[in-house]
Amino acid sequence: MRNPARWAAALTLTATAVCGPLAGAAHAAPASLYAPSALVLTLGHGDSAASATPARAVTLSCAPTASGTHPDPAAACAELRLAGGDLDALNAGAEPLCTKQYDPVVVTVDGVWQGKRVSYERTFANECVKTAHGPTVFAF
Amino acid sequence: MRNPARWAAALTLTATAVCGPLAGAAHAAPASLYAPSALVLTLGHGDSAASATPARAVTLSCAPTASGTHPDPAAACAELRLAGGDLDALNAGAEPLCTKQYDPVVVTVDGVWQGKRVSYERTFANECVKTAHGPTVFAF
Repeated sequence: MRNPARWAAALTLTATAVCGPLAGAAHAAPASLYAPSALVLTLGHGDSAASATPARAVTLSCAPTASGTHPDPAAACAELRLAGGDLDALNAGAEPLCTKQYDPVVVTVDGVWQGKRVSYERTFANECVKTAHGPTVFAF
Repeated sequence: MRNPARWAAALTLTATAVCGPLAGAAHAAPASLYAPSALVLTLGHGDSAASATPARAVTLSCAPTASGTHPDPAAACAELRLAGGDLDALNAGAEPLCTKQYDPVVVTVDGVWQGKRVSYERTFANECVKTAHGPTVFAF
């Protein structure tokens, strides 16, 4: 049992020595082996994020695994991946079955998606329109 | 044993009926019973967030409990609470024992702290100065 373990250790060390420098970053940490995807989503009642107090705020991390205080991180990450991270394209094409009532909610998404910075704000006419647009991502 | 349980249930219902409307928000959800604290922290190598690719990004939620992909959410939340959420005051007063080497790292913090929006960016001369400033919060 000992030899395979030693071999594995030796191989790991060799791989690290060979591949380590290729990773490029002098500050390489386990977290930098994949492009980070970490977001914070807020929801406020009002016309804009500047004027609306955030009534709710959740975190959502999609790499290496789905996690966060979002009620359904796995489904939200899947929905985001399907839209290629484009928050305007989440449920594009679907016609929302909502009233025209104007009771605006503003959603913000900040952080990083697959290594790129995200700073998103969008105001929806009411909660129903918001949920229709992002049935999972914006359901928090 | 049954009577105390019934009394407790009755009291809870009464308290909910009386205090519920005082909560104010028509969209009240369990998450809105406390001021949300949800943040996303990023770290990039460069002078500013606009030019530096985020090498690392973590989430940090401090309410109702400490959680997130931050390596030590509980300690980070405690450090933030101690500073009253002021990211410039995290470890104020401590003289960093660092070289003067200029290898800038830029840290951003976005989201919500105790119900208030946070949008923070700060560039440190090098990783050591960054870690000295926020020994726990910025150690990710």
